[in-house]
Amino acid sequence: MAMDYRPMWRDLGLNLDNHDALLSVLGKLYGDTFLTQPNRPAGTAYLDFVMSEVHGLRIQELVEGKKRGRKVVGTYCTFVPEELVLAVDAVMVGLCAGADFATEAVERYLPRNLCALIKSTFGFKLGGVCPYLESSDLVVGENTCDGKKKAWEVFRGIVPNLHVMDLPQMKHGEGRALLKAEYLRFMETLERLTGNRVTVESLAKAIDVVNAKRQAVHRLSALRAADPAPISGLDSLLVNQIFFYEDPVRFTAQINALCEELEARVRTGAGVAGKGAPRILVSGCPMAVPNWKIPALVETSGAVIVAEESCVGERGTRNLVPRTGATVEEMVDHLVDRYLRIDCAIYTPNPDRLAHVKEMARAYRVDGVLLYGLQFCTPYAVEALGIEQVLEGEGIPALRIETDYSQEDVGQLKTRIQAFIERIGS
Amino acid sequence: MAMDYRPMWRDLGLNLDNHDALLSVLGKLYGDTFLTQPNRPAGTAYLDFVMSEVHGLRIQELVEGKKRGRKVVGTYCTFVPEELVLAVDAVMVGLCAGADFATEAVERYLPRNLCALIKSTFGFKLGGVCPYLESSDLVVGENTCDGKKKAWEVFRGIVPNLHVMDLPQMKHGEGRALLKAEYLRFMETLERLTGNRVTVESLAKAIDVVNAKRQAVHRLSALRAADPAPISGLDSLLVNQIFFYEDPVRFTAQINALCEELEARVRTGAGVAGKGAPRILVSGCPMAVPNWKIPALVETSGAVIVAEESCVGERGTRNLVPRTGATVEEMVDHLVDRYLRIDCAIYTPNPDRLAHVKEMARAYRVDGVLLYGLQFCTPYAVEALGIEQVLEGEGIPALRIETDYSQEDVGQLKTRIQAFIERIGS
Repeated sequence: MAMDYRPMWRDLGLNLDNHDALLSVLGKLYGDTFLTQPNRPAGTAYLDFVMSEVHGLRIQELVEGKKRGRKVVGTYCTFVPEELVLAVDAVMVGLCAGADFATEAVERYLPRNLCALIKSTFGFKLGGVCPYLESSDLVVGENTCDGKKKAWEVFRGIVPNLHVMDLPQMKHGEGRALLKAEYLRFMETLERLTGNRVTVESLAKAIDVVNAKRQAVHRLSALRAADPAPISGLDSLLVNQIFFYEDPVRFTAQINALCEELEARVRTGAGVAGKGAPRILVSGCPMAVPNWKIPALVETSGAVIVAEESCVGERGTRNLVPRTGATVEEMVDHLVDRYLRIDCAIYTPNPDRLAHVKEMARAYRVDGVLLYGLQFCTPYAVEALGIEQVLEGEGIPALRIETDYSQEDVGQLKTRIQAFIERIGS
Repeated sequence: MAMDYRPMWRDLGLNLDNHDALLSVLGKLYGDTFLTQPNRPAGTAYLDFVMSEVHGLRIQELVEGKKRGRKVVGTYCTFVPEELVLAVDAVMVGLCAGADFATEAVERYLPRNLCALIKSTFGFKLGGVCPYLESSDLVVGENTCDGKKKAWEVFRGIVPNLHVMDLPQMKHGEGRALLKAEYLRFMETLERLTGNRVTVESLAKAIDVVNAKRQAVHRLSALRAADPAPISGLDSLLVNQIFFYEDPVRFTAQINALCEELEARVRTGAGVAGKGAPRILVSGCPMAVPNWKIPALVETSGAVIVAEESCVGERGTRNLVPRTGATVEEMVDHLVDRYLRIDCAIYTPNPDRLAHVKEMARAYRVDGVLLYGLQFCTPYAVEALGIEQVLEGEGIPALRIETDYSQEDVGQLKTRIQAFIERIGS
């Protein structure tokens, strides 16, 4: 836009040359991927605006908030409870990175054969191109998979303000106790960071804000059950991605406004693809901005993605937190219960995910499921087998895709995806 | 040997054709690898005998014990406390598998890109070739790495008598509490399985047996500090491998007898390689029978392996359990403390391992370290960087090797290992 953000980026310590290069690639990719879509709802203009200002206006807001003492907490996982962050009047932003950057530098710190998401996390830091990370007063890592767990040990040497949250591997008694202890420890860290106390009032208000944000996304998701789907999978994924770093109150209002338009579309039978277009559920690993590779391939091949069973999607956003509780600890118990229901593949066993995929396949009337895995992501790779069996029982075809952030396999993926869409569309 | 074990193998449900094929490959590999070594101590005849009867006499012992009601507990990890198993008068045997088998069948259950050790575990079951597994009244899996944790979910469908032990990812308060809870739960499972109670007396006796076994191995390890080394790395690895399935009392006696011979060798300066031969520490992933690929390459290239920083090695065997304690729970506390000190790469952070590698490099006077990783093993791959840094600080060269159980890369590995040995030997 018209503003010159370069002094701000310089002050944050970004590498301006690298950052220019990133923004130029990102801008072109966004235009090619999103602005070329047919029949977009008018309300997606909000998404375009957010994305055009993703390193601009939003960062300026954070920086101005910081001047007034409002701390920024950067996170990489849907297990970090935004409610606690808001309850100390801090801002939470997602830092997950969806593009390769500074790969050579990254591979001095991490093995080459590691998932692209983790390598990207390091790349954005080592390249000096992530204003969210550089704005963060606290960075939160978590012990989910082996890759992340071990990478934080190395990241600690690069990012000094790192808080690592331990997570259980099983959901039974000790697992729940661990998550609760870790949430209470995180709360103390937040209180120390901000000088603010979590109170029943501040936490209740925070729970309302986050519940409202989740409800807006649930409302949008439900509308995608319509045939034709009123909004594309790409735009819906973007909503789920923006969920992580937009101001939550503004986001909620804008997504609800978008939903009103989509409701009108559903009433009139207007959609992004023709009625009867093959409907795809994407299930598996998260897709962080700007990882739009697979949805773009799917939706330029005549199909429409109607739901995401993903941390950046319904796995991350479903289930609300009851806002009852007479004490902070009772409310933290509610948080623990809600977050413990996340059916991430790091849990063993993880039957809820099988049930949820089946439920989503029915609710969104899908014709086929795309099992999306990042290379070297063992938990989702092993679970893919069980998901395939469940889908086979439902008579729903599945296509397993394992990829990374490179563009090298796009041709081959396109061929496989097109063949799959032809198969389920016939 | 002369005995016909085929009726026993058939009764156990082995696939006799597959099993014949395995034994024939194993026998030849053992002969080529072990019996061709120069200057072997006479006491290694015990190892040869154990290996020649690994699917014979030892299984017969287990089967005869079972007839008298003695249960067999099969395990895959050094975190499973043999003390508890012995305290209910059961037998513990290691089931880790070090060779590819029934790969096509395995890949119907597991992703292709998974560590060879886990795939081998499935292969030995699906191929029907592991008499230890088929003898086991209880099979114990554990939540160590992502691969194992998720694989047990699938294994449960193939092996009905599976007990999965949860493990912490961090060693702080909740982590210790989890391990203790899991050890107590395991103890209850063992008591139910056998009908025997763990008592202060039975547990003290079991602790003595396992401590003695560990001390025998420590004694052998210490002797390898001599130059020339009195025993090869291959034979020492085999001692550490046999540790997992031999009768513990017989093993202890035999290894102590071997140590007496080695002590005499050290006194007279006799060794397996010439004095001054390059001395190698192998550090990283475990090597299960018959995974002798890397040690064989090293020791046929003029170097000698003087220590293993591995679960099948000093990481698994060091540290004893105090045999004090007035109650079973106090004794279990001692067990928890001892096992929690295992510096497996699944822990975060894991500074003890860095300290231990440094300590071993000094104690065994090593000239170079071979960082051994199984492909797709993320925890050890990430830690390799930190280990390299520590060794650089000590002025000790390191070679990082990532491989699997196939023979395809042997030529390339040989070239790299020979170049490394030349470098450290000059």
